[in-house]
Amino acid sequence: MSKNQVIIVAAGKGSRMGTDTPKQFLLLGGKPVLMYSIEAFFRFDPDISIVLVLPEDHIQEWGKIKEKQQFNIKHRVVVGGITRFQSVSNGLAAINEEGIVAIHDGVRPLIRPATISLLFDEAEKKDNAIPYSLPVDSIRIEKKNTSVLIDRSSIRMIQTPQVFGATLLKQAYRQKENSSFTDDASVFERAGHKIHLVECPAGNIKITRKEDLEFAKAHLNSVR
Amino acid sequence: MSKNQVIIVAAGKGSRMGTDTPKQFLLLGGKPVLMYSIEAFFRFDPDISIVLVLPEDHIQEWGKIKEKQQFNIKHRVVVGGITRFQSVSNGLAAINEEGIVAIHDGVRPLIRPATISLLFDEAEKKDNAIPYSLPVDSIRIEKKNTSVLIDRSSIRMIQTPQVFGATLLKQAYRQKENSSFTDDASVFERAGHKIHLVECPAGNIKITRKEDLEFAKAHLNSVR
Repeated sequence: MSKNQVIIVAAGKGSRMGTDTPKQFLLLGGKPVLMYSIEAFFRFDPDISIVLVLPEDHIQEWGKIKEKQQFNIKHRVVVGGITRFQSVSNGLAAINEEGIVAIHDGVRPLIRPATISLLFDEAEKKDNAIPYSLPVDSIRIEKKNTSVLIDRSSIRMIQTPQVFGATLLKQAYRQKENSSFTDDASVFERAGHKIHLVECPAGNIKITRKEDLEFAKAHLNSVR
Repeated sequence: MSKNQVIIVAAGKGSRMGTDTPKQFLLLGGKPVLMYSIEAFFRFDPDISIVLVLPEDHIQEWGKIKEKQQFNIKHRVVVGGITRFQSVSNGLAAINEEGIVAIHDGVRPLIRPATISLLFDEAEKKDNAIPYSLPVDSIRIEKKNTSVLIDRSSIRMIQTPQVFGATLLKQAYRQKENSSFTDDASVFERAGHKIHLVECPAGNIKITRKEDLEFAKAHLNSVR
């Protein structure tokens, strides 16, 4: 049996999309965004253990969608918390201590199985693997009443899946929640671990705005 | 007569696209990327003075493309330099001291006339206006052997058109070139001016990779 595990966090409410449908349920070529995310992990490893974290009031809808789409990739559903930290904690409570666990945004449907595979390999060697890509824009940091230009080549745009040794990540999530925890890498780092960044192909975008959905549609049309 | 001016810098060679066609000449719905960029400024102000900076060995090709596309927006062509700094300098030599000048990447075809208008208004008031959008990813800065998580809300992804008082920008470009000059704002700032950042709608992407072109296509299909 595979020791690979993934927690897919799908707790968005869709406010930035200007739509009532949660982002993860929006359709991409007739299929919800979230299903692409799950399928990518299944294609990487058909035996991977999949935990899906959903807000309580989306669970019924997800059941209906699955039935309608005849979606049959095996997964467990866990109820999310108020914050992302709490949602991931709930997901972690449902997985094994052993092996490797990936945490993935439900709204990153374009993740490639080959990228997942690379990240699991790296995490096996180094306890964690955090994907990033490089920016094409110039970057400034806004400071009090001014802004400072940053050397673009030093900037890392951090994405998911973030992959960890399961035991270590579970331990890291026993910390008290902190407002600086914007992703799992920041939780893991705060627990005293060194982050291992891995450059990954661009295009693994997060669906947060209407134009992102358009991008994803175009991408699917060009590769399928 | 309008005192608005724009320098469109189109000096890319297309290496990151995996294609021989320079990025600015790649077709978007049958029309080169660069033409959309020019048209956006024409739609903002039909009397704007347009200077297009092209590498010497693309000028003949541009002539042929214009003829084929029956492109008749009036503009002057200036030969680019080896670096972006030199290309902009050559463009600035061709414009008036008076009024406002925008510097725009030829490969940002999705810029909206309304955004250009906002930036010219702001530059009129504050000597410069630099557009940015906010990131959706977590951001880290790579340091020697480690990386530091940055508060995402303080990050500004800087874009173009960057808009300036023409006299001041011309003066700023009399400085010696410096490797930290990644855009016009950095040149202007180094000359002692305060940068005025203006938040603009997302979606004004730079076409640097294949998936960017796909995004732009999808965007055009959805708005036209």
